[in-house]
Amino acid sequence: MKRLIKNPLHRIRRIYKKGLPPGSMVFTGEQKVENPNVTFMQYDESQVKEYIMEGYDCQPAELKKVTWYDVRGLSDIKLVEHIGNSFQMHPLAIEDVLNTSQRSKWEDYPNGAFLVIRALRLHNEDPISIMPEQIAIYLKKEVVLTFQEDADDLFKTVRDRIHKEQGKIRFKGTDYLTYTLIDCIVDDYFVILDKIEEHIEKIENEILTNYTPSVRSEIYYLKRQLTDIRRAVLPLRDVVSRFSREEGRLFDSVDNIYIRDLYDHVIRVIEILENQQDTIRSLTELYNAEQSHRANHVMKTLTIISAIFIPLTFIVGVYGTNFDVLPELHYPKGYFYMWIVMIIIAILQLIYFKNKKWL
Amino acid sequence: MKRLIKNPLHRIRRIYKKGLPPGSMVFTGEQKVENPNVTFMQYDESQVKEYIMEGYDCQPAELKKVTWYDVRGLSDIKLVEHIGNSFQMHPLAIEDVLNTSQRSKWEDYPNGAFLVIRALRLHNEDPISIMPEQIAIYLKKEVVLTFQEDADDLFKTVRDRIHKEQGKIRFKGTDYLTYTLIDCIVDDYFVILDKIEEHIEKIENEILTNYTPSVRSEIYYLKRQLTDIRRAVLPLRDVVSRFSREEGRLFDSVDNIYIRDLYDHVIRVIEILENQQDTIRSLTELYNAEQSHRANHVMKTLTIISAIFIPLTFIVGVYGTNFDVLPELHYPKGYFYMWIVMIIIAILQLIYFKNKKWL
Amino acid sequence: MKRLIKNPLHRIRRIYKKGLPPGSMVFTGEQKVENPNVTFMQYDESQVKEYIMEGYDCQPAELKKVTWYDVRGLSDIKLVEHIGNSFQMHPLAIEDVLNTSQRSKWEDYPNGAFLVIRALRLHNEDPISIMPEQIAIYLKKEVVLTFQEDADDLFKTVRDRIHKEQGKIRFKGTDYLTYTLIDCIVDDYFVILDKIEEHIEKIENEILTNYTPSVRSEIYYLKRQLTDIRRAVLPLRDVVSRFSREEGRLFDSVDNIYIRDLYDHVIRVIEILENQQDTIRSLTELYNAEQSHRANHVMKTLTIISAIFIPLTFIVGVYGTNFDVLPELHYPKGYFYMWIVMIIIAILQLIYFKNKKWL
Amino acid sequence: MKRLIKNPLHRIRRIYKKGLPPGSMVFTGEQKVENPNVTFMQYDESQVKEYIMEGYDCQPAELKKVTWYDVRGLSDIKLVEHIGNSFQMHPLAIEDVLNTSQRSKWEDYPNGAFLVIRALRLHNEDPISIMPEQIAIYLKKEVVLTFQEDADDLFKTVRDRIHKEQGKIRFKGTDYLTYTLIDCIVDDYFVILDKIEEHIEKIENEILTNYTPSVRSEIYYLKRQLTDIRRAVLPLRDVVSRFSREEGRLFDSVDNIYIRDLYDHVIRVIEILENQQDTIRSLTELYNAEQSHRANHVMKTLTIISAIFIPLTFIVGVYGTNFDVLPELHYPKGYFYMWIVMIIIAILQLIYFKNKKWL
Amino acid sequence: MKRLIKNPLHRIRRIYKKGLPPGSMVFTGEQKVENPNVTFMQYDESQVKEYIMEGYDCQPAELKKVTWYDVRGLSDIKLVEHIGNSFQMHPLAIEDVLNTSQRSKWEDYPNGAFLVIRALRLHNEDPISIMPEQIAIYLKKEVVLTFQEDADDLFKTVRDRIHKEQGKIRFKGTDYLTYTLIDCIVDDYFVILDKIEEHIEKIENEILTNYTPSVRSEIYYLKRQLTDIRRAVLPLRDVVSRFSREEGRLFDSVDNIYIRDLYDHVIRVIEILENQQDTIRSLTELYNAEQSHRANHVMKTLTIISAIFIPLTFIVGVYGTNFDVLPELHYPKGYFYMWIVMIIIAILQLIYFKNKKWL
Repeated sequence: MKRLIKNPLHRIRRIYKKGLPPGSMVFTGEQKVENPNVTFMQYDESQVKEYIMEGYDCQPAELKKVTWYDVRGLSDIKLVEHIGNSFQMHPLAIEDVLNTSQRSKWEDYPNGAFLVIRALRLHNEDPISIMPEQIAIYLKKEVVLTFQEDADDLFKTVRDRIHKEQGKIRFKGTDYLTYTLIDCIVDDYFVILDKIEEHIEKIENEILTNYTPSVRSEIYYLKRQLTDIRRAVLPLRDVVSRFSREEGRLFDSVDNIYIRDLYDHVIRVIEILENQQDTIRSLTELYNAEQSHRANHVMKTLTIISAIFIPLTFIVGVYGTNFDVLPELHYPKGYFYMWIVMIIIAILQLIYFKNKKWL
Repeated sequence: MKRLIKNPLHRIRRIYKKGLPPGSMVFTGEQKVENPNVTFMQYDESQVKEYIMEGYDCQPAELKKVTWYDVRGLSDIKLVEHIGNSFQMHPLAIEDVLNTSQRSKWEDYPNGAFLVIRALRLHNEDPISIMPEQIAIYLKKEVVLTFQEDADDLFKTVRDRIHKEQGKIRFKGTDYLTYTLIDCIVDDYFVILDKIEEHIEKIENEILTNYTPSVRSEIYYLKRQLTDIRRAVLPLRDVVSRFSREEGRLFDSVDNIYIRDLYDHVIRVIEILENQQDTIRSLTELYNAEQSHRANHVMKTLTIISAIFIPLTFIVGVYGTNFDVLPELHYPKGYFYMWIVMIIIAILQLIYFKNKKWL
Repeated sequence: MKRLIKNPLHRIRRIYKKGLPPGSMVFTGEQKVENPNVTFMQYDESQVKEYIMEGYDCQPAELKKVTWYDVRGLSDIKLVEHIGNSFQMHPLAIEDVLNTSQRSKWEDYPNGAFLVIRALRLHNEDPISIMPEQIAIYLKKEVVLTFQEDADDLFKTVRDRIHKEQGKIRFKGTDYLTYTLIDCIVDDYFVILDKIEEHIEKIENEILTNYTPSVRSEIYYLKRQLTDIRRAVLPLRDVVSRFSREEGRLFDSVDNIYIRDLYDHVIRVIEILENQQDTIRSLTELYNAEQSHRANHVMKTLTIISAIFIPLTFIVGVYGTNFDVLPELHYPKGYFYMWIVMIIIAILQLIYFKNKKWL
Repeated sequence: MKRLIKNPLHRIRRIYKKGLPPGSMVFTGEQKVENPNVTFMQYDESQVKEYIMEGYDCQPAELKKVTWYDVRGLSDIKLVEHIGNSFQMHPLAIEDVLNTSQRSKWEDYPNGAFLVIRALRLHNEDPISIMPEQIAIYLKKEVVLTFQEDADDLFKTVRDRIHKEQGKIRFKGTDYLTYTLIDCIVDDYFVILDKIEEHIEKIENEILTNYTPSVRSEIYYLKRQLTDIRRAVLPLRDVVSRFSREEGRLFDSVDNIYIRDLYDHVIRVIEILENQQDTIRSLTELYNAEQSHRANHVMKTLTIISAIFIPLTFIVGVYGTNFDVLPELHYPKGYFYMWIVMIIIAILQLIYFKNKKWL
Repeated sequence: MKRLIKNPLHRIRRIYKKGLPPGSMVFTGEQKVENPNVTFMQYDESQVKEYIMEGYDCQPAELKKVTWYDVRGLSDIKLVEHIGNSFQMHPLAIEDVLNTSQRSKWEDYPNGAFLVIRALRLHNEDPISIMPEQIAIYLKKEVVLTFQEDADDLFKTVRDRIHKEQGKIRFKGTDYLTYTLIDCIVDDYFVILDKIEEHIEKIENEILTNYTPSVRSEIYYLKRQLTDIRRAVLPLRDVVSRFSREEGRLFDSVDNIYIRDLYDHVIRVIEILENQQDTIRSLTELYNAEQSHRANHVMKTLTIISAIFIPLTFIVGVYGTNFDVLPELHYPKGYFYMWIVMIIIAILQLIYFKNKKWL
């Protein structure tokens, strides 16, 4: 089966973009949603409200402590630009929202911070194919904007937590919300890693017990996926470490111990990935050793059959000659003796091969 | 034999955990003990007392210089939480105690320090399988808490030393006890490395003298184990080096020379591991060279048999033809001459192969 | 087909140069243009003028805000030297313009800055061959000089943007023009990377579905090209990062956010290249596994044919012997029985091979 | 021949040591000498005296400028401890003297400096086996103590130089003696490297001219030895660089130019080692290419014999059939024609194989 | 052809040197010249004079601005020592002049600077063998001493330039002469790299078009040479970068822009070398793929011949049996039908193999 390798992790900026001045708005991703869908949520200690944005009206009646706009679907460039402009996002930041093959990054702007993070999800049909999804977050004192290409709600658990007043989220500001969103994305990584771990164990099993030669393309796809994921996760380390150096300006409600915990998780993800890459490398070597061992074994067995019968065929050939004088042919037990000799030869060969451990 | 590879070194945070706010208490390890078992020990220069904790009552009558709580078995989350809270541990630290797939780390909290270290033990049944065991240590001015999943007493030698007044341990504070516990874990590493060294020598022997092809999966398992162990030990370097920078706040009774000695041991462990990884890499190459040499040798020998007999079979075939006119058949010594010719051909071939060093 | 690997990336300084004092003017590239072609362009907020330079007269009547000289074709050493001297370029900088195998670099001179950047273009005939082109830029307060070997206009989009007053370029100084030129070169990289990505997918397909053994030289050429491109791009990172540290002296009209964006693109290019190198490495391994799998399969099948027929040939050989006494020959159904036995042997062998999964 | 690989470079701390408090004295090496042998030497500008220590009396009548104790054989733990204590060595330093699998290191103690260095010597019987020997040096203002396991005098040349008043050694203090001892050990490395170089050339020769397949285990042993030696030498770099930063306290008589020279030699040793490791890696690849080339050549030649004779055997088989009607058999020159045809077929095959360069 | 690999790059300090105190004068190179040859040259803006030194008289009548002693041939230790002492060279520097296996280095001495640089030249007979030559330079305010082993004039172009008043050399001091000498050596590197590039292209061609298996030892020699050259060039980077930090004391006449240019060339040499090493690595992989492809192709073709004829031989064997009752033999067209059947079988096999792409 050919894997559904979609590699938007390194999908490359489209050609038609070339020649436009920086800050030009072009959507370079795949259109996954027909109609972009914008919801927003407002909450403070006492209240939570959730709206669906209609048309271009993104200013709610009154601002609460925290307002979170969640934009899903980026194909309507004008809408994205309108929302971005409404909250004074820099044109380059809006461009980066639309260009969905960014590296994870943290950028400071005079009136806020812009983050790009790569979420990873499993494909529904092919449980091994991993679907990256670029999440852009724009963070201001009282507003958080999140942008994504797909319609799925990646942050359902966060939304639930806000509704149910679980944890401290309702008592904290936009910085804590941002922290929670990133924590939620990193948590999802562990699910992916768990799946990969299972898949590695399946491959290990296929190599060691019931050998299936198709395993070599499985290994290849897994290798590529691990490289892609690792490259998606690696820059996140810098993003999270920026978090802790940011204290003061935008951040006042997130305790440093939580950031350290998040950083620890990212390091752990990278470590597990490197471990899995090592394992895959060892598995490749094992596969190669296994394959050559099997190939040798097959050839050896088949060649032994030839090696045993070719001398015997020679002997019967000798007595098939039509010489006028060939005394053995006229012995009454000649045929019987020939068999005896041939059986002895075959047995000697078998003993020899056995001793040499070729059988 | 399939090795008992248990890889809790990179066992991944469970899926059901996802969505909970940080600081939620979930035990993610394997339950190894039915009933958690908590003992505590109090000592100063003159006295040592040891208790088994019953119920939730963890406050001893009177506090001596050093009190050491040893919690074995983490499945009773409430108990762990109760003990943690009794000594003002931070919720994230208690979470880390329960989540038994942490990296080794040292974390400062306002009222103490939290350490996670990975002990390694040999499996009883399969002497090569290495069982990692996460040890969490919480260190305060007068109290040391240690948490582990398994019921085995890893620190028996330390306990004995306290009882027997060996060394200076009874005259020192909680920092010296912590140092002694880590030193004890690092000492165990050498036992493991020694076992691996023996196993490497066994594999080397299997490759060079009595060749067993199954050695390739042995190599694979060893490679994975070494990767896992190295990853477990590597962060310990930072933990120990933190020790020496900590002086003053919590540490006043451990001489820096001892920390330097401990650091030296950790470096030595890492060096030996890297050396073993190098050796395993060389062994893999040797195995591959050996395997292809043997396969070539077998095929060569078998093919030589064919190469000798096929021309001879051709000759007897010639005299098996039924041509009306085939003069050689009517020579009185024709059959004898044929044998002479065939023997000469076979000998010439053997000489040729010998000269070419194919035999 | 042999690829047109032209490797001017590492074309080496010519021998005849040796022994000349530093600063000697020798053109070391390939002459791509018969007659060098120098155009210059002057613009400010309100006006744009474009001239073709004739003879050696490079001083325009009046200087506008920005004057950009675009020299294409470097074979007329005297002309290049004359232009360089007219704008007080250092002799070593002029030497570097002519020596078209420089590394990308940024060099400060008392009266300006000298940049060497490597543009990459696709070859017209062979869409995979990449043609590097050294672009030298000399930047002063009011003048930008660009030098290239080829006659093609690499900066057409920039020129258009100036004419059409797109973006802010007309309101900015020479530093912004330089930034735009580099941005334009980096944009072109993405086109190249896209082409390579396509080619990698083609190779992947060739290996996995319709196996063509010639793929191994394709892989080799691609590997070399990626190495060359990576080496061309890598020093650009330092060049761009110099940009942002340059502020003040020559730079006052480029916002740091744009430089950061450009730097980000360069990092992205390097990341994609490394990803592609990783992929090529995995593809090589896959190719090797595939090739040895196919070779083994062929040999196995062919050898099975021999293994089945050689024993049968032996049997018919037995009944071709001319013994006086060979009872089976005289059975009325002897011939029929022989066939039965031979068919049974063949079937048993087939079942055995099937069971062993050799068929 | 199985090499005498003794790997005390990574001989691991013995198990029985486990559980003892730090600073416990246990000898972990091999006992190479029956009775430890302690000599001491005293010298200043005018006089040299040399004594053999008897019993536990290590204090000489009068102290000269420099007193050098040379302890060979460490199995008498009490003696070592007694000597160490007589000169106020720290218990951890004495422990390290006895534990002969230390890394090279330099440790400052309040009253002196403690160095561990690994000398390398060739084995007498097997000229390729390298014997590491741990040299511990304790250096005070007026006394130098050296400890080693073996009875051989590694420092004979230094002793001779002191007696013969060669160089400046008699006019300098203990720091210069220490420098001279290390220089002497490093000089010995070059002897070892020279031997390895010779051995590499021998292997190169074996691969390229008279191919011996056993060379693969030679390569393996050499690889391991180089890894071990490199790990023994690498930390020496830090030790020597510490030397030059030490000036003032213990060091006043060694000119910095000499230390720089020594450092240079250590760097040179490491470079040569890395070069040799590279060479061994290239040799392994060459061996693999050579081996597969030879194996292919053998199989090809043997298979060509089969490929030539099998069609011929088929032809004679055709004329061995017993058909009633088989016209060719009755041609008077049928047998002769058959030979013509067969010879033509064989020649055509040979020409074909020759053209294809298979012969 | 066995390459003339002379590896003085890592020729190791001779054994007989061992045991001598540091600063002992021993010549460790190969004696390439019978009688050492010392010339000296004096020049200032107006005059140039050149002398051949006779005997031990190295002090010229009068000192000009710059005096350059060029010593070729180091076997006369006394002479070298005499010259060194005449200009107050440090004994360790003189020792390093004689020991011709130094690393490139820059060493400051109170009265001057001592440089060791490795020049590379092509061997006359074997155009690929590279001959390293150690150049030692001692630089004082008014005197430059150069020492080399070989009699060839490596600095002919510099000498010519001085005579012809080319460039600024006559107007500058000893520092500019030193810079020019190093520049001259680095320029020679490009000649070597060019030769290697040609050789790589030759090997590439041999692998891809007219396959010659001996290419594998060519690759091996090239690999070793590249490693050696790279190690010779790498430390030069530090030497040149020292140059620019040296300003003031010895250096006042060399413009920093020239040093930067020289540094740039060294970096470029290293980059090209690394590129060539990469290419050689890819070529090795290509060679392996090519070799196994060819071997497989040969074996496949030969085995197909067997696979086609073995079943046919079986069929004719069937009709060679002597059964009393074998009906086919008595068909009038039996022999003809047998041929038909055999031809059909052969054709079917050929079609099958064709379909499978084995032919």
